[in-house]
Amino acid sequence: MSQISINHDEVDIVIGALQLDLKSFMEEWRPVFSQFHLIIVKDPDLKGELEIPAGFNFNLYTKSDIDGVVGSSSNAISFSGYSCRYFGYLMSRKKYIICIDDDCIPARDSAGNFVDAVAQHITNLSTPATPFFFNTLYDPFCKGADFVRGYPFSLRSGVDCGLSCGLWLNLADLDAPTQALKPELRNTRYVDAVLTVPARTMMPVSGINIGFNRELVGPALLPAFRLAKEGNLRWETVEDIWTGMCVKVVCDQLRLGVKSGLPYVWRKERGDAIESLKKEWEGVKLMEDVVPFFQSLRLSTSAATAEDCLSEIAAGVKEQLAPTNPVFARAAETMVEWVKLWKRVQTQ
Amino acid sequence: MSQISINHDEVDIVIGALQLDLKSFMEEWRPVFSQFHLIIVKDPDLKGELEIPAGFNFNLYTKSDIDGVVGSSSNAISFSGYSCRYFGYLMSRKKYIICIDDDCIPARDSAGNFVDAVAQHITNLSTPATPFFFNTLYDPFCKGADFVRGYPFSLRSGVDCGLSCGLWLNLADLDAPTQALKPELRNTRYVDAVLTVPARTMMPVSGINIGFNRELVGPALLPAFRLAKEGNLRWETVEDIWTGMCVKVVCDQLRLGVKSGLPYVWRKERGDAIESLKKEWEGVKLMEDVVPFFQSLRLSTSAATAEDCLSEIAAGVKEQLAPTNPVFARAAETMVEWVKLWKRVQTQ
Repeated sequence: MSQISINHDEVDIVIGALQLDLKSFMEEWRPVFSQFHLIIVKDPDLKGELEIPAGFNFNLYTKSDIDGVVGSSSNAISFSGYSCRYFGYLMSRKKYIICIDDDCIPARDSAGNFVDAVAQHITNLSTPATPFFFNTLYDPFCKGADFVRGYPFSLRSGVDCGLSCGLWLNLADLDAPTQALKPELRNTRYVDAVLTVPARTMMPVSGINIGFNRELVGPALLPAFRLAKEGNLRWETVEDIWTGMCVKVVCDQLRLGVKSGLPYVWRKERGDAIESLKKEWEGVKLMEDVVPFFQSLRLSTSAATAEDCLSEIAAGVKEQLAPTNPVFARAAETMVEWVKLWKRVQTQ
Repeated sequence: MSQISINHDEVDIVIGALQLDLKSFMEEWRPVFSQFHLIIVKDPDLKGELEIPAGFNFNLYTKSDIDGVVGSSSNAISFSGYSCRYFGYLMSRKKYIICIDDDCIPARDSAGNFVDAVAQHITNLSTPATPFFFNTLYDPFCKGADFVRGYPFSLRSGVDCGLSCGLWLNLADLDAPTQALKPELRNTRYVDAVLTVPARTMMPVSGINIGFNRELVGPALLPAFRLAKEGNLRWETVEDIWTGMCVKVVCDQLRLGVKSGLPYVWRKERGDAIESLKKEWEGVKLMEDVVPFFQSLRLSTSAATAEDCLSEIAAGVKEQLAPTNPVFARAAETMVEWVKLWKRVQTQ
């Protein structure tokens, strides 16, 4: 699949451990994960000992490591649940980070071949993106593809790719109401394509299966948006959706690309959608304000780094969204704290 | 494939005949085309008798019909070559028009099944489009698909679809230099997806394999942009690229959608790419001005019909592009003439 030669020293695979037993997850991924350095972050709310099979090269971070680094410097930032991965992002010094939820195993393509999700993410990240004009034959840098007639030559060199968003077979990434209303719905359609999401187009980035260029957009992958009653089920969270919009706005501002499509992972069942129906769909409701905010947000021309952009986004959140709901005020505060923390830790 | 029940009385299939012998083309498509009314327009530059097999329901238009309708009312509009199809669009009174180049035959999907391109275009056109937020699992109205987590519920009803752009297997729709530089390149990747191209994103629409809603955007499918030395090879033309940008701007203005992806057709070889290398690549060069123009174009809020939009686009072309090259001045003039012609003929 991949034509790219991968420098294994440039990659960290970050695993947020939301369950103690990582054995089957890591065995399924062994052919891929064993080639790379891993950062495993244990959900600070999880009690007990992680079970990690032998034969992997990893750093493990737990609650005491988090407390040691973040300490009393911030009460705003939480690394609970899915957000524990962000601590791994903070500790990495590699160019590329790949992160896959611990309830996902490798997918197989239409021909039944094992999908090397990491190689595909690195391919996506290390080939140019084309956010300024849509190519109808999808990613022109895929093998066998090219730019179609009418594509301006001046735009064909493309720009750097900041974020690669992979997809999911079997259990699709639906919200709680959709999952509850269509409990039998499974995603079986393997779409053999990668595309650049156009500039100024907003999208719901899922954190389940992503890769990003830490040097370009690292600080934008942040744990800012936490619902009051959030649990440990994807369909109850929107933290990654918020984060994804931050990254997209940063990429648009810095003239970087965001790709979506391959690679797929296979999502196993976790949780009870009907049970989730009983909860408040706070995240679903909040999207009605979140999406228009990010769509209309324009940063100043002086915002030239991801950190600059985030500070401006936080200011916009505080001004425009915070008056409507305290969850936004907390998000703005957390973003400001995160940028400080990122600068401090990354320069250590 | 299609879940949609098709009203055959709502569809015209328009065929621009650039070759006299349509027998093999029409036999390949017989299972599909024989169900619909066809409009066949003979390239007015083509001499001799068309060969059309029996068993089809069609109207044939030739140079004398064109002269009879357009007469001396316009010297600007040319229906030569690929542009002969636009006369068919002008004469249709149906809701949907499907148009496929006469060097294309039905494709087969990854499983080897015959692709009914017309049914897929009608499906694309009669299900909603979602131009205001990107759905990472592609068209949520496809069978087995849905909106992903984070997609605002207020945007899930979507909007009407104005244009459906299909793709091509085998000979991809490349420009002359790319085709000449990579003469062996063939498109073999069957991407099983339809997506809505986001609002305000420009794209190179190919006229090879399209469907559109004539009632919503009909007049925007116009023969306005003709290169001085244009021949009868796709890679020498950009008339459809120009037209596509007009349609996209109209759809953005009228809050309609443009879909791209399925259905595929199989493009056979025609022409000699190396021979085309000797010609001027005027179209390729002009895209460098055309694309930024359409990207930055904003119509007034009062432009509420396709005709209104086209008049404003023509005025913009005349003002901003015409001073740089006479081909743009002619395009602006032709667009104005076309809107007049469309209004006259469509109200007869």
